[in-house]
Amino acid sequence: MDEINLDHDRGRRTGLPEVVYGESKDVDQIARIMSDLHARQGYALATRVSAEAGAQLLGRLSGARYEARARCLALGSLPRSGRRIAVVCAGTSDLPVAEEAAFAAEFLGHEVTRQTDVGVAGLHRILADIEALERCDAVIVVAGMEGALPSVVAGLIKPAVVAVPTSIGYGANFGGIAALLSMLTACAPGIAVVNIDNGFGAAAVAHKIATRVAAGGPLSLPR
Amino acid sequence: MDEINLDHDRGRRTGLPEVVYGESKDVDQIARIMSDLHARQGYALATRVSAEAGAQLLGRLSGARYEARARCLALGSLPRSGRRIAVVCAGTSDLPVAEEAAFAAEFLGHEVTRQTDVGVAGLHRILADIEALERCDAVIVVAGMEGALPSVVAGLIKPAVVAVPTSIGYGANFGGIAALLSMLTACAPGIAVVNIDNGFGAAAVAHKIATRVAAGGPLSLPR
Amino acid sequence: MDEINLDHDRGRRTGLPEVVYGESKDVDQIARIMSDLHARQGYALATRVSAEAGAQLLGRLSGARYEARARCLALGSLPRSGRRIAVVCAGTSDLPVAEEAAFAAEFLGHEVTRQTDVGVAGLHRILADIEALERCDAVIVVAGMEGALPSVVAGLIKPAVVAVPTSIGYGANFGGIAALLSMLTACAPGIAVVNIDNGFGAAAVAHKIATRVAAGGPLSLPR
Amino acid sequence: MDEINLDHDRGRRTGLPEVVYGESKDVDQIARIMSDLHARQGYALATRVSAEAGAQLLGRLSGARYEARARCLALGSLPRSGRRIAVVCAGTSDLPVAEEAAFAAEFLGHEVTRQTDVGVAGLHRILADIEALERCDAVIVVAGMEGALPSVVAGLIKPAVVAVPTSIGYGANFGGIAALLSMLTACAPGIAVVNIDNGFGAAAVAHKIATRVAAGGPLSLPR
Amino acid sequence: MDEINLDHDRGRRTGLPEVVYGESKDVDQIARIMSDLHARQGYALATRVSAEAGAQLLGRLSGARYEARARCLALGSLPRSGRRIAVVCAGTSDLPVAEEAAFAAEFLGHEVTRQTDVGVAGLHRILADIEALERCDAVIVVAGMEGALPSVVAGLIKPAVVAVPTSIGYGANFGGIAALLSMLTACAPGIAVVNIDNGFGAAAVAHKIATRVAAGGPLSLPR
Amino acid sequence: MDEINLDHDRGRRTGLPEVVYGESKDVDQIARIMSDLHARQGYALATRVSAEAGAQLLGRLSGARYEARARCLALGSLPRSGRRIAVVCAGTSDLPVAEEAAFAAEFLGHEVTRQTDVGVAGLHRILADIEALERCDAVIVVAGMEGALPSVVAGLIKPAVVAVPTSIGYGANFGGIAALLSMLTACAPGIAVVNIDNGFGAAAVAHKIATRVAAGGPLSLPR
Amino acid sequence: MDEINLDHDRGRRTGLPEVVYGESKDVDQIARIMSDLHARQGYALATRVSAEAGAQLLGRLSGARYEARARCLALGSLPRSGRRIAVVCAGTSDLPVAEEAAFAAEFLGHEVTRQTDVGVAGLHRILADIEALERCDAVIVVAGMEGALPSVVAGLIKPAVVAVPTSIGYGANFGGIAALLSMLTACAPGIAVVNIDNGFGAAAVAHKIATRVAAGGPLSLPR
Amino acid sequence: MDEINLDHDRGRRTGLPEVVYGESKDVDQIARIMSDLHARQGYALATRVSAEAGAQLLGRLSGARYEARARCLALGSLPRSGRRIAVVCAGTSDLPVAEEAAFAAEFLGHEVTRQTDVGVAGLHRILADIEALERCDAVIVVAGMEGALPSVVAGLIKPAVVAVPTSIGYGANFGGIAALLSMLTACAPGIAVVNIDNGFGAAAVAHKIATRVAAGGPLSLPR
Repeated sequence: MDEINLDHDRGRRTGLPEVVYGESKDVDQIARIMSDLHARQGYALATRVSAEAGAQLLGRLSGARYEARARCLALGSLPRSGRRIAVVCAGTSDLPVAEEAAFAAEFLGHEVTRQTDVGVAGLHRILADIEALERCDAVIVVAGMEGALPSVVAGLIKPAVVAVPTSIGYGANFGGIAALLSMLTACAPGIAVVNIDNGFGAAAVAHKIATRVAAGGPLSLPR
Repeated sequence: MDEINLDHDRGRRTGLPEVVYGESKDVDQIARIMSDLHARQGYALATRVSAEAGAQLLGRLSGARYEARARCLALGSLPRSGRRIAVVCAGTSDLPVAEEAAFAAEFLGHEVTRQTDVGVAGLHRILADIEALERCDAVIVVAGMEGALPSVVAGLIKPAVVAVPTSIGYGANFGGIAALLSMLTACAPGIAVVNIDNGFGAAAVAHKIATRVAAGGPLSLPR
Repeated sequence: MDEINLDHDRGRRTGLPEVVYGESKDVDQIARIMSDLHARQGYALATRVSAEAGAQLLGRLSGARYEARARCLALGSLPRSGRRIAVVCAGTSDLPVAEEAAFAAEFLGHEVTRQTDVGVAGLHRILADIEALERCDAVIVVAGMEGALPSVVAGLIKPAVVAVPTSIGYGANFGGIAALLSMLTACAPGIAVVNIDNGFGAAAVAHKIATRVAAGGPLSLPR
Repeated sequence: MDEINLDHDRGRRTGLPEVVYGESKDVDQIARIMSDLHARQGYALATRVSAEAGAQLLGRLSGARYEARARCLALGSLPRSGRRIAVVCAGTSDLPVAEEAAFAAEFLGHEVTRQTDVGVAGLHRILADIEALERCDAVIVVAGMEGALPSVVAGLIKPAVVAVPTSIGYGANFGGIAALLSMLTACAPGIAVVNIDNGFGAAAVAHKIATRVAAGGPLSLPR
Repeated sequence: MDEINLDHDRGRRTGLPEVVYGESKDVDQIARIMSDLHARQGYALATRVSAEAGAQLLGRLSGARYEARARCLALGSLPRSGRRIAVVCAGTSDLPVAEEAAFAAEFLGHEVTRQTDVGVAGLHRILADIEALERCDAVIVVAGMEGALPSVVAGLIKPAVVAVPTSIGYGANFGGIAALLSMLTACAPGIAVVNIDNGFGAAAVAHKIATRVAAGGPLSLPR
Repeated sequence: MDEINLDHDRGRRTGLPEVVYGESKDVDQIARIMSDLHARQGYALATRVSAEAGAQLLGRLSGARYEARARCLALGSLPRSGRRIAVVCAGTSDLPVAEEAAFAAEFLGHEVTRQTDVGVAGLHRILADIEALERCDAVIVVAGMEGALPSVVAGLIKPAVVAVPTSIGYGANFGGIAALLSMLTACAPGIAVVNIDNGFGAAAVAHKIATRVAAGGPLSLPR
Repeated sequence: MDEINLDHDRGRRTGLPEVVYGESKDVDQIARIMSDLHARQGYALATRVSAEAGAQLLGRLSGARYEARARCLALGSLPRSGRRIAVVCAGTSDLPVAEEAAFAAEFLGHEVTRQTDVGVAGLHRILADIEALERCDAVIVVAGMEGALPSVVAGLIKPAVVAVPTSIGYGANFGGIAALLSMLTACAPGIAVVNIDNGFGAAAVAHKIATRVAAGGPLSLPR
Repeated sequence: MDEINLDHDRGRRTGLPEVVYGESKDVDQIARIMSDLHARQGYALATRVSAEAGAQLLGRLSGARYEARARCLALGSLPRSGRRIAVVCAGTSDLPVAEEAAFAAEFLGHEVTRQTDVGVAGLHRILADIEALERCDAVIVVAGMEGALPSVVAGLIKPAVVAVPTSIGYGANFGGIAALLSMLTACAPGIAVVNIDNGFGAAAVAHKIATRVAAGGPLSLPR
């Protein structure tokens, strides 16, 4: 079969360019698609790129940036939006997912603010930084285990909270189900949930919000 | 126990006032809390209010509005934001959830655009209305059964899509699990998911986005 | 079959007398067992007694106490222990479970301190009462929805936290599974979990702790 | 135990010859069974044959065909049916399952039409090829993640849609459960679902349909 | 919201006209849609119509047919196809689902052959009727409990087997999950599975097959 | 901790001697326990012994028997009971579990009859051997995938059927859940189910039946 | 459809006559089938017959016996086997399931010994009756909640233990799943598990064992 | 991101110092945090430290203790409390979890009593040691498979039972779910459950109890 059928028009339609999901692709495929996208758009992003593949791709794609913990590879980036996105991370084990979100948000043109290791077992850590979060257009909260952090954060700030459950934990965590269910049933409203470990998906939601803020002006209402 | 301990400060902190969850409260409790909130804030909203309770409350709370399908009761509303939110609904069976979202979004100050019965089995219906969705600050998509509509919509428009799975269906739908998993694993990025049947939650996320757009101006960036 | 085979020795062995689980018993059975236990021990407790059954039993058992929200019926009580147990409750919908825990703890001889409607979406409510919790021998925390409250409380105080998930919620709550998994995977250590909606079970654990504290003195250690 | 007890009569009874499931068999077993079946029938097929086993078997079975991505090995094939089956594939990651279906459908005597990377996030890709699908006797649709593609396709064409969920995805995909439930609860009727990753099973259903079409003529009805 | 947005073009596109799902609609809605569809097409079908609603609708829609066990209501039917569909049912408890399939298949224009109470615990019952099944274009097999019947039938005949798991059973049946998983993992290939209790869905798949057979003639192949 | 606390009295109490579960023990532990049990009883059995461990143990325990596919190691055996147990196996992939059952049944003193690869997709294979099964005191039926074989067998014979689901399969098999649920909900009564892949457990149940038959004589009844 | 297709030969083939599952049948159907079976065999049994249906059937079927707690109705019974079956029940709430097992075992010709309310929280109760269990040919153990009783009993006696999980409990019991999994994974071997709440199924397994014991004599072995 | 944000105040607030979860940290991180904590507090504990990491850390942290089976590493310990905690373990396979609990309890200052391989299939083993358990302030019971031991123990003694399900087992154990559900639904009250395999969590609960006992004196009650 002819394997790849890129949706080059996606950026124009949705504001989010097609992004390469590296998990099931080999180095040749990733290199070819990244080059093609970069040539057409001036930027390209691949996620879930292993350290080994990343090293090879840095050698083949001149000007590429790769970050091992985020498992992300980029060529260029979208123009600066002038908007700010926060990435808040409950525990150090959740960092790979948080870094994927942060890398993607920066690639998509936004300034990123980070807070790490601020789990709910030590509330003072998150309470200390509330003001910085208020200044952001969207706040991505990454948490594994019981996934309680988004609920606490959403009870304290005005920006939309984009919650990312992670598969970090063991036993009754069930690969992220505990955190996912927590976030979906959180008692604080205004929480938007994405898939387990989906750092990029959270950045995509935050990007849509930040882009709308950047573009927004009062609508002329019919009533 | 002293049952109720309202969080009167929540609106100031989060931009979303405390809302009454009517499911587990009797008519006396709802009436008392609604009056209290209305007296302090000038507006109050209760969700999951049964038709029977709604009728009684209309008699006790002067100026209240009640809509049976949405199961929502309101006194006053937030000031008009000048922003627009769309509520798109896959099937007629999903309407109670969609109406809860629409009622809440209007209560929260936004203009609401509705599209109903536009499931993916007849794509021409959703394709006909794409332009109207582009003009909104957030698009709430409500779907039961296989929950495919948010994925299709998010592949076509720029605003953030807030997806609400419903418990409509039978058999392998498992009370909304099929739609929930579909939305969480959708191939189109930029989809924010809320709990099954949580129309109000979707309105809360859309409200946070629309409010930010209304308030937004370019930030002065440090770089 | 000869239906009932009471374990009259249980109180002596375990410090917890046999308690009547009312759910699957009719009024005659409950009345007969309560009378029998009261005659032998001087006290008796039945849980999960419906309002209708409770009203009938109050007429048949002189000196009985019944509380509708807790669904508990008691004759007499254990001697005062001089110890204190807290019952903290996240939302008003969780009150039936919290009241079962409180009723049972008082029946078992302990002083009970209550805090209600202190969910994590408004942290200031729980932060205001931390000192009162420190003076208790065990703190029972009852929460439905995402069940995050035990994790927050356990990060703030020294007494053991006995966490009770409730089946309150809808959608991805799945009848209490979301709260149960949250509590089992909580990032704060020192949390003891009991079954969904098991207010009595939490009181039993707290009773064992409080009784041990009352009895405790330094052990003579072999090293 | 005498391990293998081939059902040589199956082809005559069901129109589908016994096929070798290679997953749990070693190279010797596969070679022996393939030779035996080929000698009796003039054709033989093995699925789930690893690349390593495939290479060895090509050396031992003269005239064998092996395709690595499909993990299929064949000797000969059924006579040409003159019917056409389509294999539509949502993403490039789903290709191994799609190729298993296509390889098996060709082995079973049918002409196969392929469409790849036509996921619902870019609807124009599938809309462009609807006419080609109409000319087929059955359309196999392979999709992982949210598995929405069969629902969209079945809303557009007349042939029966045989839907194959794949285990591609992560997090709330749960090894293909998300796609499986989507397909079972699809709002478009006329979708036949097979097991997760079961490309061969889809080909078997399509083969039964195509064979019946090839054989069909008007029945003499009793009324 | 304007509730209903019929897809009048569906029959032309897919060969299956829009069908009314009665579960979540009131008598007025069903009556109105049935009249509308009948006026345009000359036929109309509603499924999941309760006995009470059925009785009322028979009084309002002249010429309507209603069958209580199938919970189906029809006005007219599609033209006779000259094709034959079998409905095989494992136990008497599965009959409502089997009758929905049979009613729908007849409405869609096909002759229906029925076999009932032929569960695998008494194999001679199904073995006695194999020849009748061979003469059909598709065989719908309805089974609850362990759902083993489709596997046995598919090992004996040439037509495609459309398997419908039912929610009949208790305990480890889990509302039809046991039968659903059995059918998806059946060792006999060529089984197409539809949702739990989805008799209409099975008829839709069988209809697509039978219609294709009726229309089929040899294709001119490019090779 | 002192790791091992053998229950040497178990054989006298239950008729089943303590058996070594090899999965989580190293070669030294297995060798030591086997020697100890053999010295006291004259026989010893270990299950779940890997091929590598088996080879080492054959070198250290003189007179030991090891069978790789069954993963069982034995020293001596119980006295011959004069009773017969059948082991019936649906597919060749299920053989390791079937062989564990057969090896254990022989070790426990019984004659074992084997039937392999007699899955329900080719019913004639099992129908051919019904008489041999009738002569056994218990019939162990091992099946993966949809697990339908025990239901078919139990509808044909008088001895108790001990059903063993296996984890063989993929996708909706879910590691043996499909087969387990099938067997628990089988429409044929008189089926006793054991854990997934628990060949030894099935042999233990069959042993208890066969031993009772060997010992049985008419009881003197009180009525 | 012709609804009922009785398997009159089942008793001869399997030693267990066809039994009427009353759950999904009306009084007319049950009366008709019971009469038919009684006329042919001299005995007939129906399970899951509600109290209301039972009262009506007693009036219509002369000589019928009905027991409300067991929900069983019988006409005549099989000849006395001279064998003994025990029914052990963990809690009073499990009695309906235990009584179904006991009623069926007596109908099938066996003497039944009962032990009730002997849950593992008070071990002395079960330890007191071990000798009586040893004299039985099979021991049915019925338990809800954590389902630990079969494991304890099987560690103490020689007869096969047939374990019946019940749906009694709440919360993490999940309708009997907790007890079912406990019994399947019990550390004591020789436990045969049947479906949740399946008292009749346990009696059927015990009947097969007891019948074999009654018939058994030494086989002439080929070696 | 700045990875580590230690909560140095946790010991003062909760009585439980911050403990290093070694699973997702490398040797450098563990060494650095252990040194930092030890310098500030005089003691430090890491859990889930692999044998390989443990060996390296023993070389880098002078005075460290490492135990391979417990996978725990310690520097110093808390002051002796004079209290006693029991660790009871059902099977030898559960020992790693039991040893983690015992190691942590000793590190936290308590005397630890061990009982191993006392599963419910041989009750005499646990019955022999009941008196020793009575002298402890808390009894940790570790069990995999069906997890019945806590229920039996809690029916025999006065101290609180802290139950730890383990992931030991296969098939229907489902990675510890069977044991977890058993413990949550145990019929004996007064059981506190922690996460699957969470030996440290059990020690933390027991520590909170023991510390409270050590500190306890009669409260002055208001009534």
